[in-house]
Amino acid sequence: MTDIMQKITLGILGLGTVGGGTVNVLQRNTEKISGRTGVEIHIKSALVRSLNSERICDCSGIQMTTDHLDIVNDPEIDIIVELIGGDTLAKECLEIAIANGKHVVTANKALIAKYGNELFAKAEANNVSIAYEASVAGGISIIKALREGMSGNEIEFIAGIINGTGNFILTEMLEKGRDFSDVLAEAQALGYAEADPTFDVEGIDAAHKLAILAAIGFGMPIDFESVYTQGISGLALEDLKYAQELGYRIKHLGVAKRTENGIELRVHPTLIPEKRLIANVNGVMNAVLVRGDAVGNTLHYGAGAGAEPTASAIVSDIVDVVRRISSGNHSASAVPHLGVAAELLQTQKIVTVSEFSCGFYLRLTVNDEPGVMAQVTQIFAEKNISIEAIIQKEPTDEQKIVQIILLTEECREKLLDECIQEIQSLSAIQAPAVKIRVEHLS
Amino acid sequence: MTDIMQKITLGILGLGTVGGGTVNVLQRNTEKISGRTGVEIHIKSALVRSLNSERICDCSGIQMTTDHLDIVNDPEIDIIVELIGGDTLAKECLEIAIANGKHVVTANKALIAKYGNELFAKAEANNVSIAYEASVAGGISIIKALREGMSGNEIEFIAGIINGTGNFILTEMLEKGRDFSDVLAEAQALGYAEADPTFDVEGIDAAHKLAILAAIGFGMPIDFESVYTQGISGLALEDLKYAQELGYRIKHLGVAKRTENGIELRVHPTLIPEKRLIANVNGVMNAVLVRGDAVGNTLHYGAGAGAEPTASAIVSDIVDVVRRISSGNHSASAVPHLGVAAELLQTQKIVTVSEFSCGFYLRLTVNDEPGVMAQVTQIFAEKNISIEAIIQKEPTDEQKIVQIILLTEECREKLLDECIQEIQSLSAIQAPAVKIRVEHLS
Repeated sequence: MTDIMQKITLGILGLGTVGGGTVNVLQRNTEKISGRTGVEIHIKSALVRSLNSERICDCSGIQMTTDHLDIVNDPEIDIIVELIGGDTLAKECLEIAIANGKHVVTANKALIAKYGNELFAKAEANNVSIAYEASVAGGISIIKALREGMSGNEIEFIAGIINGTGNFILTEMLEKGRDFSDVLAEAQALGYAEADPTFDVEGIDAAHKLAILAAIGFGMPIDFESVYTQGISGLALEDLKYAQELGYRIKHLGVAKRTENGIELRVHPTLIPEKRLIANVNGVMNAVLVRGDAVGNTLHYGAGAGAEPTASAIVSDIVDVVRRISSGNHSASAVPHLGVAAELLQTQKIVTVSEFSCGFYLRLTVNDEPGVMAQVTQIFAEKNISIEAIIQKEPTDEQKIVQIILLTEECREKLLDECIQEIQSLSAIQAPAVKIRVEHLS
Repeated sequence: MTDIMQKITLGILGLGTVGGGTVNVLQRNTEKISGRTGVEIHIKSALVRSLNSERICDCSGIQMTTDHLDIVNDPEIDIIVELIGGDTLAKECLEIAIANGKHVVTANKALIAKYGNELFAKAEANNVSIAYEASVAGGISIIKALREGMSGNEIEFIAGIINGTGNFILTEMLEKGRDFSDVLAEAQALGYAEADPTFDVEGIDAAHKLAILAAIGFGMPIDFESVYTQGISGLALEDLKYAQELGYRIKHLGVAKRTENGIELRVHPTLIPEKRLIANVNGVMNAVLVRGDAVGNTLHYGAGAGAEPTASAIVSDIVDVVRRISSGNHSASAVPHLGVAAELLQTQKIVTVSEFSCGFYLRLTVNDEPGVMAQVTQIFAEKNISIEAIIQKEPTDEQKIVQIILLTEECREKLLDECIQEIQSLSAIQAPAVKIRVEHLS
């Protein structure tokens, strides 16, 4: 090493789980990281809610403040690491930091999903970078893989298990035969799920992440508002079991797909054939399947959350920014924020739900009387929708109610909904049909 | 786009499968790639063996030559794409190109594994980059993931299925119940295996790739000569089946592991618990499992060979180099070739085979006589090696020969070999013991 090593100074906003994890990784691996950058990385200060809270990291030598302006306006700080979350104070901090010519590293998916377009434009105007690898799928460097590693490809689809809490719940339900609400309560007790689990279980968190990935994959501005979002809170254990019986697993998937009609952007429970690797990603783990026209299918798997996996992505972003600064390229990244220069991003037509095209799983609750199956299958035949598999279960009680489970071939969702409407009007039908989308991901 | 777009000029050495695939991807996705780089990429010339051969790509506008000097000495060419393979002419081409100040993109694992250290030094001295993503695991951007995406981590181990031919053979053997030689002949007929399959089935190709990954992971010079290499040509179908019965799969794995005694570098058939995702990577697909101290386990899966998957990696490397050049950073990469600056690479102690530490699968062929199992288990007990599982099969014929299959806990290989030596001296033993290493990868 040279005697006088260049020094890069960080200010960290937020010293909770992820902030503390980031300090720990930077301190523990400081020698390795210096070797990889040729630079000494110095954590000067940190924004905290309270000066006296207990921390998971050693804060000696770090100036603590409760005023974000102490950090974002500090002329000695080169890089702001934003880990406070939310989209009000965080947004203000980024805007000031960028205006002050500082680079930003953030894990904030909600902020990037909602305000990424305008923040990236501001960063580019000020010749700084916003690095946001940690905002999607924690420790999996999926943004780097998509934006750099697959830069020769036209992306055909992205399909990801990108919410660990949701995947934990679905895994526990199937493996232990437990109900949704029961597992959710446990996930909250274990700290996997927030006290308000809406963002996780209703798919909003996954929609934030999908919007970011889709923008990179398809070279378009981030369009969070257009993501069709359905959570897992309505999922019944019996559907997870029937899916398994059919050779599938149900995962909460974010899907972004290029089709003839435009881009499909959707988050929903999805049946996936069990022989796909991604169908076997369990517990809190995340995985993103990306299909490129040249490379074919690639899968990127790892921990999607947690202090140190998220810190891994944050530190790799810090290293990227530091390498750029220290190689003399102080200006905005050679890699555009969304993979193409802002002026070349193309707004895409987003497909509405009725025009989605995929396979469908249907569970019908019917009276066990002659002719029902014939009536149901006739309705599908009239719409020219092929049925790939049927399970009919014995009556469960003296009321002679049976469950019919159907898997259809790929068809337009509108057409399927018309079938369901006709089926619902049959006299034998005893409950609303359960509909879950199917993706073969081949 | 600006009216006058910067132009970067390529010369391609080799227009076979990968070279042709690279031209096809560059031409098909030319607009997307220009959007991602802000630069027009022009293929000026290509080195071919014969000017009149049939090609898989459209070569109009590309100057063809049979003299490599026409390309590596062409002052108009910015980047040399080396796809001829081998380590004689390819090495000469790289040396001349580097001396001429050209950047290099290569898919040549043998060349990098054997001469990477000296070639990287020459490139650094001449302020150019050698990009070599395509040299390991084809379309999977594992070098980028390891060198950049995990740059905050201390790497604990790397374990990869990094030879598609070998994985195809093992998959077919198990799924179809076929013998090694039978499947190898088919793989050769299908074009998956070379006429001389030594590099694939004896593990040399995997050893090249492992040496490269280990250097990046552990910040050491490339040390191909130290890789312990065992192929799959000696594997019997029955061992694949017994492993499955025990809940494992046998994969041909490259393992680089940091241990108390130094770095283990080894390529060999390996039992992996079937519940690990990597145990379920089948056919010609590749996958690399990397464990970092912060991120935990990550898996990187995709096609490891083939025209377009390899071209995907080559084009992403071209894009990386172009982005660097066009952002004004003409000098050597901000990302050092092996992840740390050459002067900071540290030679590591490489562990010899007798000091390897892992679990073991043993298959013993013994006379079905009283007391054999007691004798065998006594030998393990004396060495303090725990046995995790035993299968004893019924005699297969009138000669009363039985197979005993044992799984041991992790132990030092030397100790296990001493056990085997003692076991072999038992009068009941009828054939040499079969020994296969076990990795739990947890």
